[in-house]
Amino acid sequence: MADQRDTGLLLDPKYDAAGLITAVATDAATGDLLMVAHMNADALAATLAMGEAHFWSRSRARLWKKGETSGHVLRVRDVRIDCDQDSVWLICDPAGPACHTGARSCFYRRVTGDALSPLD
Amino acid sequence: MADQRDTGLLLDPKYDAAGLITAVATDAATGDLLMVAHMNADALAATLAMGEAHFWSRSRARLWKKGETSGHVLRVRDVRIDCDQDSVWLICDPAGPACHTGARSCFYRRVTGDALSPLD
Repeated sequence: MADQRDTGLLLDPKYDAAGLITAVATDAATGDLLMVAHMNADALAATLAMGEAHFWSRSRARLWKKGETSGHVLRVRDVRIDCDQDSVWLICDPAGPACHTGARSCFYRRVTGDALSPLD
Repeated sequence: MADQRDTGLLLDPKYDAAGLITAVATDAATGDLLMVAHMNADALAATLAMGEAHFWSRSRARLWKKGETSGHVLRVRDVRIDCDQDSVWLICDPAGPACHTGARSCFYRRVTGDALSPLD
C-alpha cells in the first residue's frame, strides 16, 4: 500500500496514532509560510468542502475554523498532499494576520544559533 | 513560559512527547513547499551548524542528512521558528529533487474531494 499512497490518485491520508496529519498554510500571493497546524479527518473534510481552513486543536481537543472568532480566515485556493499522504499544503488567501500574536505569519523570528531575531 | 516562547528571543523549541518538532522546507527561488519532516534537538543543531538540512527519521529512528545518499541536499539559506516554537521553516536552495520519488517537491498532487490529480 505504500506504493499506492505515493503514486496513486486516491486520497488516503496516513493519520498518526492521534488521528492527525500535518497541515502547512502558505500565502498564495507572497509564498510565505503562514502557519503549521494539524488536521483530523473532519478538519480535512470541512476544509475541502468549505474552502476555508479548518484544523484540529490539540490543546482544546476540538475542531476549529481558523478565524472563527477573529475573522482572520484562510481562504484555501489550492490543496496539495505529499508523497506519503501525512501532510497537506494549503495555498491560501489570508483575510488577516495568521498568527494569534497579530503577526502576518507565525514565523516572525529568524533562528541564528541559540538566539532568535525579529524579522523586519 | 508560553509568553516567553511566543515573544522572547531565546531558542527554546517545544519538543513533543517523542522529542520532535515539525520542519517545513521551501524553495528559496520559487517559494514552493518542498517537504515536511521532523527534527529532534540533534537534527536542529546539525542543520544550524552545517547549513544543510538534517532530520530525524521516525521510520528508521536515526538522524539523517537530507541527500546523504542521493546528493540531493537542501542548503539552508534561512531558518525561522513559529510563535510556540514547535515548528521550524527552512528556506532552502535544493541541490536536486526533494522527494524520494524523484519529484522536485513531495507535494506533486492536488486534492479535489476524494481524488488526487497530478500537477503539470
